[in-house]
Amino acid sequence: MSTQTENTAIAQTAQILSQILTTWKSNNARVTTFFNQYQDDFYLQEVAPGRSRGIYLLGHLVSSSDGLLPLLGISERLYPQLEKLFSTNPDRAFDDIPSMAELREYWEKVNSTLADHFSKMQPQDWLSRHTKVSEEDFAKEPHRNKLNVLLSRTTHISYHMGQLIFLNKKEAAV
Amino acid sequence: MSTQTENTAIAQTAQILSQILTTWKSNNARVTTFFNQYQDDFYLQEVAPGRSRGIYLLGHLVSSSDGLLPLLGISERLYPQLEKLFSTNPDRAFDDIPSMAELREYWEKVNSTLADHFSKMQPQDWLSRHTKVSEEDFAKEPHRNKLNVLLSRTTHISYHMGQLIFLNKKEAAV
Repeated sequence: MSTQTENTAIAQTAQILSQILTTWKSNNARVTTFFNQYQDDFYLQEVAPGRSRGIYLLGHLVSSSDGLLPLLGISERLYPQLEKLFSTNPDRAFDDIPSMAELREYWEKVNSTLADHFSKMQPQDWLSRHTKVSEEDFAKEPHRNKLNVLLSRTTHISYHMGQLIFLNKKEAAV
Repeated sequence: MSTQTENTAIAQTAQILSQILTTWKSNNARVTTFFNQYQDDFYLQEVAPGRSRGIYLLGHLVSSSDGLLPLLGISERLYPQLEKLFSTNPDRAFDDIPSMAELREYWEKVNSTLADHFSKMQPQDWLSRHTKVSEEDFAKEPHRNKLNVLLSRTTHISYHMGQLIFLNKKEAAV
């Protein structure tokens, strides 16, 4: 095989990873736009009767993204207090939660921290194991890598965006 | 550079594409499981007050996946009648829509047709342009390729799955 083929494969890998990152960023951007659209009170509404409030889902998304820092071996969580409030308990388990202004700030900070780190990751980093899988299990299940975490978290953001959109009036029927 | 490096890059590309396909399939499987869980009548409920019914969202997801066939240059749509019913019009625009049994069958057929085709696609195929972008525009915007379509449709499935889950009773609070 030629150096040409090699360069092609390396370039393809880089482009594919870049497109996955763009998909993650676009989904984040959609959430950011949504939460910058209305006054804070708007997000105190439930997305559907008896379901989570908008503010809770923002906290949930921040906590989920913050959890990527330890899961991908980057650092500890920036806002460890959010895990109990927004990940391991449902909405309304606690009266005292951060404000919309705080959550918006955390959301930006967590995502920019992740994006900085992601921009330096090489293909072999993405294909390396995340911190919740042992070396032994990873040898048997090599798809349990950092890329898989990114892919599943990207669809997770979209999952909750589909719910948040119900806070909008009827323009979004589907 | 060595053949070793070349083989590594080729193997990395293959693994990354395989993981993206697995993510697409997992999201489809979640929809399939959801729509096999209850009697047909269950899916005639709206996912939230004034929003689409479950049956409409299944039709919408079938129509969206069916649209990948022409968009990716594979074939014509298998069920072109669904586009008007479930993509270009909201729920309840038409009284006469396919039954749940028919939609479940279409969903399986469209996805298995796509999966068969996807399994044969090479990295350069995924990075080639889709049929809605001209050669000229593609030269300027090379990310407007088939992979991008797959990534965005994968998050689209998850977006609607986040809505469908509201049909379940309270076990799914987030």
